[in-house]
Amino acid sequence: MIANSSTTIRFLLASRQCELNSLRYLLQGGELVGKISQLVHMLQRERGTSNMFLCSTRGQFADELILREQEVAQAQAPLMAQLDMLERQIAALPQASRLFSHVASVVYALSLLPALRQQIRQRTLRLPQAMSFFNDIIRHLLSLVFELSDTAAEPAISRHLIAMFSFMQGKEYAGQERATGAAAFAAGTFSEETQQKLLSLIERQERCFATFADFADDEHRLRWQQMAADSQFERLRRIACTGRELYEADSCLRWFALATQRIDAMKTLEDALAQTLMAHCQARIAATEQANNEQLADIESLMPAHENEESSYSVFSDAHGWLESGGVRPQLGRSLLVLVQQQSRRLQALDTELAALRETLNERKQIERAKSMLMQHRQISEEEAYKTLRRMAMNQNKKLIEIASAMLAVADVFQSNP
Amino acid sequence: MIANSSTTIRFLLASRQCELNSLRYLLQGGELVGKISQLVHMLQRERGTSNMFLCSTRGQFADELILREQEVAQAQAPLMAQLDMLERQIAALPQASRLFSHVASVVYALSLLPALRQQIRQRTLRLPQAMSFFNDIIRHLLSLVFELSDTAAEPAISRHLIAMFSFMQGKEYAGQERATGAAAFAAGTFSEETQQKLLSLIERQERCFATFADFADDEHRLRWQQMAADSQFERLRRIACTGRELYEADSCLRWFALATQRIDAMKTLEDALAQTLMAHCQARIAATEQANNEQLADIESLMPAHENEESSYSVFSDAHGWLESGGVRPQLGRSLLVLVQQQSRRLQALDTELAALRETLNERKQIERAKSMLMQHRQISEEEAYKTLRRMAMNQNKKLIEIASAMLAVADVFQSNP
Repeated sequence: MIANSSTTIRFLLASRQCELNSLRYLLQGGELVGKISQLVHMLQRERGTSNMFLCSTRGQFADELILREQEVAQAQAPLMAQLDMLERQIAALPQASRLFSHVASVVYALSLLPALRQQIRQRTLRLPQAMSFFNDIIRHLLSLVFELSDTAAEPAISRHLIAMFSFMQGKEYAGQERATGAAAFAAGTFSEETQQKLLSLIERQERCFATFADFADDEHRLRWQQMAADSQFERLRRIACTGRELYEADSCLRWFALATQRIDAMKTLEDALAQTLMAHCQARIAATEQANNEQLADIESLMPAHENEESSYSVFSDAHGWLESGGVRPQLGRSLLVLVQQQSRRLQALDTELAALRETLNERKQIERAKSMLMQHRQISEEEAYKTLRRMAMNQNKKLIEIASAMLAVADVFQSNP
Repeated sequence: MIANSSTTIRFLLASRQCELNSLRYLLQGGELVGKISQLVHMLQRERGTSNMFLCSTRGQFADELILREQEVAQAQAPLMAQLDMLERQIAALPQASRLFSHVASVVYALSLLPALRQQIRQRTLRLPQAMSFFNDIIRHLLSLVFELSDTAAEPAISRHLIAMFSFMQGKEYAGQERATGAAAFAAGTFSEETQQKLLSLIERQERCFATFADFADDEHRLRWQQMAADSQFERLRRIACTGRELYEADSCLRWFALATQRIDAMKTLEDALAQTLMAHCQARIAATEQANNEQLADIESLMPAHENEESSYSVFSDAHGWLESGGVRPQLGRSLLVLVQQQSRRLQALDTELAALRETLNERKQIERAKSMLMQHRQISEEEAYKTLRRMAMNQNKKLIEIASAMLAVADVFQSNP
C-alpha cells in the first residue's frame, strides 16, 4: 500500500464507516434503554404491590402479586434477548468491558428474584429488606442506562440519554416514595424516620428532574412541566411528611392510586423519550449514510479515470498553495485536503463537546462510586450510603462531590479492610 | 435466555473478553507507534539533509538526499502495511473514527512527499517552506501517537504512551533545532529571529522531556537523565543562541554532527521505550488471559454438574446474607456475587485512573486544537501559531491553556470566516 489519493480516501471512508458503526451500536443501546425502562416500570409495580402485601394482614394483594410477577417476566424476556444479541457482537465491541460488567450485575440481581418472591409470599422477609432488594435490582438496571449515556460517542444522543437517565432515576425515587408512603399509610403511622426518608426522596426526585430539564429538548421539558403539578398528590404528600392531619381510612389506597397514576404518567413521558431517542439515532444514521454517499460521489467525480498510471507528483503538486509545479488535476489535491480537514475538524468538535458532557457525568459517577464503596464496605443500603455522604458533606460544609472524590482518593484503605 | 448463574457468568466472561480484545488492539497500537517512531526518525534525517542541500551552493548533499529518501521509503512501507491491517479490522473498531481521520491526514501528508522532493532538488522551494512541509508530516504522525495515548483503555499503558509521545515530541523539537541551527550555521548568520526560534525550540524540548520524566518509569527516566547532559553540544547551542562568539569554519558540520549524535541517542532510548511498551501490552494480555482461565476454573469448580435442572431458588437463596432460606449450594451464589463485584470494582478503579490521565491529556489536546485552528485560519505554521498563542497568553497574563480554551469557545466565529 502506498500513500496516495486512493489510500487517503480509503482511510477517510474508514473514519466515516467507524462513525456509522458506532451510531448503529448506539441505536442498539437505545433499544436496550427502552427495554430497561419497561422492566424497571414493572419491577416498580411489583415492589409496590409486594409492599402492600407485606403490610396487609389479611392476605390481600396475593392475586395482584402473581399478576405483577407475570408482567415482570414479560418485560424481562425482550431485555434478556437484547442482551443476548449484544453479547454475540462482542468481537465488535472491544470497549464494552464495563458495559458487560454492568450487565453481569443486572443479570445476577435478576437471578435472585425467584428466591425473593418465595420469601415475600412466605412472609419470611421483612418489608424494608424486600424493598431494598427491589431497589438494588432497579439500581443496577439504571447503572446500565448511565453506562450507555457515558459511552455514547455522539453529543446530541448522549445529551438525550442523560436526560432520559435522569428522568428514569427521578421516576425511581418517585417509585420508592410510593412504596415508602404506602407502607406507612398502611401501618397508619409516620415515624420521624419515615418522614425524613420521604422528604429526602422528594428532594432527590426534584434534583433528577432538574437535570432532566437541563438536558431534555423543549418539547419533553414542556410536557414534564405540564404534568408535574398535581395538587391532589401534593396534599397527600403534605399529610405524609408532616403527619399533622388525621389519616383518613382509605389514605393508603388513595396514596397508592394517586402515586401510581403519577408514575404511570411518567412512564408515558419516558416512552416518548425512548421513541425520540430511537428517532434521533435513526436520523443520525441516515444523515451519516447520506453524507458518506455524497462524499463518495464527490470523490468519484474528482478522481482521474486512470489514477494508478498518473504519478502522484502531478496530482498533488498544487495541494499546498506554495507547491507550484502546476499539476494536471490540482483540484483533486485541494478537494482532498478540504475533505481530510473537514472530517478532522468535525470529529474534534464532537470530541470537545463530548468532553464537556463527560465532565457533567463525571460528578455523578464519582458520587455513585463513593456510594457503592460505602454500601459494600459497611453493608448498608443505597439510601443510607447517600445519607452518610450528605451528612459528611453538611458537617464539613462541603459539596457532595468533594466528599465523594475525597473518599475515592483513599479507596484503597477502604477496600483492603472489608 | 433466562437470568441465572450461567448467564451471569456468560456476561462476566464477556466483560473479560472485551478487556482482552481491547488489550490486543492496544498491542497493535504499540506496534504502530514503533513504526511511526522509525518513520519520523528518517523524515527528520531527510529534513536535516534537505536543509543542508538547500543551504549549500555547490550541489553538496545530493547523494545523501537519495539515501535519505530510500531510508524514508524503507520506514514507510511497514507503517503503511500496519495501517492497512488496521483498516481491515474496521468492523471491530467502532470507536476508531478519530484514529482513521488522523491516519487519513498522515497518508495525505505522505502522499505529498514526492512533489516536495522534486521541488527541493530543483531548488524551486525555499528552505523555510521545505522545512515547514516536513514539520507538517511529522506533526500528523505524532498526532496519531497522541490519539493512541488518548484512547488507550489501560492506565499503565496509557501512561507509558504519554511518556513515549512526549519523548517523541521532544525529539522532534530537537530535530527542528538541528535543522534551524544547521541552516543558520551554513548561512554564517544568526538573525534575531533565528535565535528566538532556537530558544523557543529548546524551551519546548525541555517541557516535553519534563512531561516524559513525569510519566516514564524509573529506568527510562534515569537513562534520559544520564544522556541529557552533553557539554559539547551545549557550547554550540550557546554560540547559536547568543551569536557572540566567532563562528568557526566547520561549525555547520560540527553542529549537524553533534545534533545528529544527540538525536540518534534519543532514538535509541525511543526504541527502548517502544520495546517496553510492547512488553507491557504482552504482559497485560498474558495476565488477563491467565486471570480469565483461573476465573473459569473457579467457576467450573463451583458450578453444580446438573445446574440446569436445579432451580435458581436454591442456588441463590443465600447470596444475600439476609435471604435465609438456606440453599443447596449457597457458596456458588456468594462466590458469583464476589466475582461480579470484583470485576465491577476493578473496572471502576481503571476508569477513575483513566479519567485522571485524560484530564492531563485534555490540556494538551485543547492547545493543539487552538493551534491548528489558528494555522488553518491564518495559514501560518505550527510554530507561528504557537508563538501567537504564547504572546496572547503573556500579554494578558494568562496561561496557555486558558487562551486555548477561550479560542475553542469561540471556534465557530473563526471557522465560519475562513
